Amino acid sequence: MSERPEARSPRGFIDRRGRDVVAERSILAAVSKVYEAWGFEPLETGAFEYADALGKFLPDADRPNEGVFALQDDDDQWMALRYDLTAPLARFAAQNWETLPKPFRRYAFGPVWRNEKPGPGRFREFVQCDADTVGSARPEADAEIIAMSVEGLEAAGLPAGSAVIKINNRKLLNGLMSAIGVTSEAQKLTILRAVDKLDRLGPDGVRLLLGEGRKDESGDFTKGAGLNPAAAERVLAFTAAGVGGRSETLAKLADVVGGSAEGDEGLNELAAIDVALRGLGVGTDRAAFDPSVVRGLEYYTGAVFEAELLLSTLDEKGQPMRFGSIGGGGRYDDLVARFTGERTPATGFSFGVSRLAAALRAAGRGRATTARGPVVVIAFSQERMADYFAIAREIREAGIPAEVYLGSSGMKAQMKYADRRLSPAAVIVGDDELAAGTVTVKDLDLGRELASKVTDNAQWRGERPGQQTIPRGELASALRRILDAG
Amino acid sequence: MSERPEARSPRGFIDRRGRDVVAERSILAAVSKVYEAWGFEPLETGAFEYADALGKFLPDADRPNEGVFALQDDDDQWMALRYDLTAPLARFAAQNWETLPKPFRRYAFGPVWRNEKPGPGRFREFVQCDADTVGSARPEADAEIIAMSVEGLEAAGLPAGSAVIKINNRKLLNGLMSAIGVTSEAQKLTILRAVDKLDRLGPDGVRLLLGEGRKDESGDFTKGAGLNPAAAERVLAFTAAGVGGRSETLAKLADVVGGSAEGDEGLNELAAIDVALRGLGVGTDRAAFDPSVVRGLEYYTGAVFEAELLLSTLDEKGQPMRFGSIGGGGRYDDLVARFTGERTPATGFSFGVSRLAAALRAAGRGRATTARGPVVVIAFSQERMADYFAIAREIREAGIPAEVYLGSSGMKAQMKYADRRLSPAAVIVGDDELAAGTVTVKDLDLGRELASKVTDNAQWRGERPGQQTIPRGELASALRRILDAG
Repeated sequence: MSERPEARSPRGFIDRRGRDVVAERSILAAVSKVYEAWGFEPLETGAFEYADALGKFLPDADRPNEGVFALQDDDDQWMALRYDLTAPLARFAAQNWETLPKPFRRYAFGPVWRNEKPGPGRFREFVQCDADTVGSARPEADAEIIAMSVEGLEAAGLPAGSAVIKINNRKLLNGLMSAIGVTSEAQKLTILRAVDKLDRLGPDGVRLLLGEGRKDESGDFTKGAGLNPAAAERVLAFTAAGVGGRSETLAKLADVVGGSAEGDEGLNELAAIDVALRGLGVGTDRAAFDPSVVRGLEYYTGAVFEAELLLSTLDEKGQPMRFGSIGGGGRYDDLVARFTGERTPATGFSFGVSRLAAALRAAGRGRATTARGPVVVIAFSQERMADYFAIAREIREAGIPAEVYLGSSGMKAQMKYADRRLSPAAVIVGDDELAAGTVTVKDLDLGRELASKVTDNAQWRGERPGQQTIPRGELASALRRILDAG
Repeated sequence: MSERPEARSPRGFIDRRGRDVVAERSILAAVSKVYEAWGFEPLETGAFEYADALGKFLPDADRPNEGVFALQDDDDQWMALRYDLTAPLARFAAQNWETLPKPFRRYAFGPVWRNEKPGPGRFREFVQCDADTVGSARPEADAEIIAMSVEGLEAAGLPAGSAVIKINNRKLLNGLMSAIGVTSEAQKLTILRAVDKLDRLGPDGVRLLLGEGRKDESGDFTKGAGLNPAAAERVLAFTAAGVGGRSETLAKLADVVGGSAEGDEGLNELAAIDVALRGLGVGTDRAAFDPSVVRGLEYYTGAVFEAELLLSTLDEKGQPMRFGSIGGGGRYDDLVARFTGERTPATGFSFGVSRLAAALRAAGRGRATTARGPVVVIAFSQERMADYFAIAREIREAGIPAEVYLGSSGMKAQMKYADRRLSPAAVIVGDDELAAGTVTVKDLDLGRELASKVTDNAQWRGERPGQQTIPRGELASALRRILDAG
């Protein structure tokens, strides 16, 4: 063949190895265990859904890859890779509604695909983990999802108190809008956008954006929502109500939005969530009411949750920055209705596994699982391979990962190999050792720098730091000591 | 909307729930642990590869979906979902060869996709689990893969002795062919096909297919390979050499193919594999040499492995049938060369996770993980929700899955719900119980039949089999007793 393909991955798809994979798997294992303890069953659906079931588009173009990876099956139906785990759940629930226990609690994790422009930290394939309850309109179902998410994040390794789930309710916002007499959808959106800038601009900046508008440092003018000062103050009082405990927030909110039908409904729902959370032992430090949370309010129909990492991390320039959101969710009562025509209440929480892994690293808890390679049994001679394998087996049977070097290189390269693998130790068994029933153990943690300077086998015979010749029966305990010290 | 989409999955894609998912995950967790102990690191690559890297086709058609799911990226390059885990490994190894430890041991699992006609038990998406060593030409690398696969299958739950890995080597077959003077590729293929029917037709039937040909019961005639009787006997002696221990087989094979250069090479490789397997404590009962294994010989370049379940299962008509292959692999030294031009020795073993789960069920070890639902705390009254949640929390803290019923139905429907979920018990807490500090526990295993006849709450008050009112502090231990009995 004159032309060889280039070895490369498509843009936005990455390979992950070793400890990164192990870290994400241990997150999923820990969270799965928690979710199952709460009565959520695992569900796995296929990667493809029919495009009409995903609902992103109707195939009116030849290749309707708008945001999704789509292709036409051989019966000409368009199918697309799932872009989240909620749409497949809605399809599954609609398809199996008659036979499912109701409410239906399920969790799921797996890759989702977005046909978007990739960028730094922005991939076209990533793993999500979702838990949802379908078929319960009770606010307690929201509370359960919130408390379980808190427990899941902590089980994954987030220190208690390092993250908080902030809870809002779309009905409160609707109540606020009717309290200040706003009916235009465009004006509502402008208000939401202004509130979303609270973190960055503070109340004074948001006050300008709620009113006539705001000129930023560069002189650019952003037109405001046009509220009168009293209405703007009411919006600001609404967003500021999250300070303090949940009961306190409820009392403040009642002052701002109480009286409007939707506002009262939202308040009652939050009150029921509060009661359930207290029964579950979840305080304000882990789940707080925060009316300034507006992200997702357009999508959700009732309660909205946002899990926020409270720790600061360093940005690319070494400046401290808020890590921000590590997951979110809420109540969406209209998704299953797309198929069945019947409104089916549902609520859920979702997080991105790589994002949570990054949060754990920021919290100093990432990659808790060992990055150590296996113990490497050095291979001197073809005639002794059975002995090397027997020794590797003895080490594994003691619960310590081990392998025999299987390349074709000499001693120096074998030590380099063990070093590159972050092996805790190399085991050296020459003819003398085999005759005497001993093994030589080289502590690679201690000797890592020296090892790279070794040029011939003879040097390995002498007494060196971290190298010892011991009876073969003591091999496992000697390795265990090295691992415990490492 | 006048038109609602139908809730259905694309053909060949399935949903899996609850215990099926848990069973497959526990296989992957057990096998991963073994593979890591042997020094194999996990690797995850993206779902898509460039079509030229997969090597299945060159895009000469508008939609070249021949066997794979392919689509054109927005830069017009064709990409396709991986159809196995070996092709992505070859691409990864070629791309990162300079920086990888050599030999490079990795394992991987995940979905693969085949754009083929689905059928019963034949899906277009399934999970594979592979382990491969890239960069070692040593037969000991094959032995390691074999011994590790045996340990992995047993760790997944297969009883020792219920499966055996059968080992062959393509070079032996090449030696045989030159020993009997066969050089035509077509004739070789006819011989291989004849040998592959040994299980079904026995030596007499295969003898006919190696010679002039064979007429089956229906009168249909299959033309044979045209070997003379002496050559046919030699082929049969070759295939029969697998009876007995590995050393015995080697001795028999030496009689049949010894002397030819390739035959001797194959014999030496098998001898080295035997030595390593003995060092690893793997006897003929778990890994046997079997020259009748011909499947995959076209693809592999040296050793070939096939894991076979020895247990009989029942077919659809209740007749005993051999379960057959549960995985396989071998040495393929040409795959990475597609990219680099340099031959890179590699060997590996692969199994389908659903297939292994089916084998475990056939061996009576499937779904070892519990299929039990959570304990259900019955919800009588909105005012008591915090109490219900606190009780569910107490149960979970004792390590027992539990949930509060969150639907809107009455007692009868709640008991039915718990029954449908296979809950071991329901916990009933009325005002009396709360006042007295007690709880009522209903053993649903004992009472499952009766429960479906309950028509009103009053009935639940009396003494019934499997129902007891106990101090709240004893709830966890009472539930534990029910679970242990179940």
